Amino acid sequence: MKRKVTLKQIAKELDVSVSTVSKALRNSKEISLDTRTKVQAFAKLYNYRPNNIALSLKNKRTKTIGVIIPEIVHHFFSKVISGIEQEANNRGYNVIIGLSNESFDKEVINIEMLANGSIDGFILSVAKETLLLQDYHHFYETINQGMPIVMFDRVVNEIACDKVVVDDKLGSKKAVAKLIDSGCKNIALITTKDYVNVGKLRTQGYLEALEEHKIAPKASLIIKVGENKDKDIEIETLEKEISALFEKEKDIDGIFAVNELYAISAMKIAIQKGYKIPEELSIIAFTDGVLSKHSIPALSTISQHALEMGKKSATMLIDKLEELVEEEKYQTEVINTTLIERDTTK
Amino acid sequence: MKRKVTLKQIAKELDVSVSTVSKALRNSKEISLDTRTKVQAFAKLYNYRPNNIALSLKNKRTKTIGVIIPEIVHHFFSKVISGIEQEANNRGYNVIIGLSNESFDKEVINIEMLANGSIDGFILSVAKETLLLQDYHHFYETINQGMPIVMFDRVVNEIACDKVVVDDKLGSKKAVAKLIDSGCKNIALITTKDYVNVGKLRTQGYLEALEEHKIAPKASLIIKVGENKDKDIEIETLEKEISALFEKEKDIDGIFAVNELYAISAMKIAIQKGYKIPEELSIIAFTDGVLSKHSIPALSTISQHALEMGKKSATMLIDKLEELVEEEKYQTEVINTTLIERDTTK
Repeated sequence: MKRKVTLKQIAKELDVSVSTVSKALRNSKEISLDTRTKVQAFAKLYNYRPNNIALSLKNKRTKTIGVIIPEIVHHFFSKVISGIEQEANNRGYNVIIGLSNESFDKEVINIEMLANGSIDGFILSVAKETLLLQDYHHFYETINQGMPIVMFDRVVNEIACDKVVVDDKLGSKKAVAKLIDSGCKNIALITTKDYVNVGKLRTQGYLEALEEHKIAPKASLIIKVGENKDKDIEIETLEKEISALFEKEKDIDGIFAVNELYAISAMKIAIQKGYKIPEELSIIAFTDGVLSKHSIPALSTISQHALEMGKKSATMLIDKLEELVEEEKYQTEVINTTLIERDTTK
Repeated sequence: MKRKVTLKQIAKELDVSVSTVSKALRNSKEISLDTRTKVQAFAKLYNYRPNNIALSLKNKRTKTIGVIIPEIVHHFFSKVISGIEQEANNRGYNVIIGLSNESFDKEVINIEMLANGSIDGFILSVAKETLLLQDYHHFYETINQGMPIVMFDRVVNEIACDKVVVDDKLGSKKAVAKLIDSGCKNIALITTKDYVNVGKLRTQGYLEALEEHKIAPKASLIIKVGENKDKDIEIETLEKEISALFEKEKDIDGIFAVNELYAISAMKIAIQKGYKIPEELSIIAFTDGVLSKHSIPALSTISQHALEMGKKSATMLIDKLEELVEEEKYQTEVINTTLIERDTTK
């Protein structure tokens, strides 16, 4: 039986990166002539079939949308997919999903695999590693070959394509303003390190809200959480930091966290230390997931409207596929966040 | 541009079901000759390309696994997919995912779409509607054409294929025995209606555990939750029932729930009513998800080892694809459950 050789196998065999193979097969001048020749010869010998979107597009429409997300055990991304599904099914399209697991190589491999005649266009949220490497050749080439991409949530600004984003800064300003309006004067922030763009924007929103209300920010009230591949360790470390924060800063009366898991961790420590919520301590989280809804007390949150984000992304992609909008005209849709008041705010 | 007509469009156009179209295209004698002729003529006219697995198998291996799950906003299924991904990637395979949304038609459409040359084999959990209709022709035909299927969790016993299941009955016996051993004498059960097979097995486990400990079951201690498409309404209704149960049965000292959301709902009402957990009331849930881990107090659970289930499913499929096991030899792997003791049990 003839087996198809994959991009990854070629990379492994020739001891180069997947990206190099991908570029070499497209004869990119970024790659040395020597490497290009080697990769191309190997691919030919082992029957690698390069992506040929343009050709497949001329022949057929698959009525299928490819979705690539960075993570699957994640309420936000699964909600977005539900939204994409609903809208796509309404309009007679199927959806297939690939996972990048935050890896650049896996993102490239998934795009290769799906673009190879299986789908009509992509909806995707960019992997963290891709954003770090800033290597976007796979997106450019997909678009250049006539296959539309809609990016959501984690987008690349400089790529000309349709985008659906959330106003992260405004959302967190809303949350912090609510805390201030209900009487909080010492509001702690639990956020990510700055290289995560979403966390950075939410931190900015916190700072701007304080400034607008003439409250001086205090560095000692801000925890920037270091990411860990093992989420359990990340949360354990965070809980120690939160505990130390409560010990040092006795007058904390509000907490704003950039995601619900951080907020739940803070709430757990606060309850252990005997704080009355919301009477003595108010808490708001960004992202309205299943934890917020079912925690006891139920957590007040900023909702990103993941379902709507999915529906909007599907609408934009299908409108483009069905030529209801001009091919060369790109839009960025901003989804408005909403404050959902539950039992952790006054 | 020539657009490919889909199974769904043919069904709509001829006013028959997707299943009828699928069977008619395969010339199944279940369908009247008249309908078969009509469907086949229509499909030919509009260029429908029937699934041709056997042909594609002869030509290539895609090194891709197709996964079909009933729901995506569901911690258990997304964890299983993580497990499949990990094992598949280790062995050089990619994974693409389709959703049935518990619908028979969507399951048939997804199998058609993916089997059409995109993948080498399937890992899937059967949609509720398919189990109700007991129409399994799409599975039989996929297998008959030489494409292997591994079923996990929700399986069809009479289909000859590899399966990975959890011992639901034994798992719930473990939970209830733990409650009894720690002194509970009046244990309530929150379960689903009996047509959901998993719920039924877990209910049996509860009853057997009581019997083995010479405790007579009381119908008044059992709540069978009616499913609702709107989860919020389902949970609201349940909370009222739980509240009424506490009013009527004052001596409840233990609760076993067949999933974590039911358990969290019970815990919420119990806390409102002033019960001390676990001193006065112990709670255990089946399914160890994100809610159990982060609830306050953290919930004791029966873990189904979703990650392991996914890894095992991928191992079984890939072993078959790579001819490491005999094609005609099928196995059913039972994953053992584990009791995870947290803060809701003594």
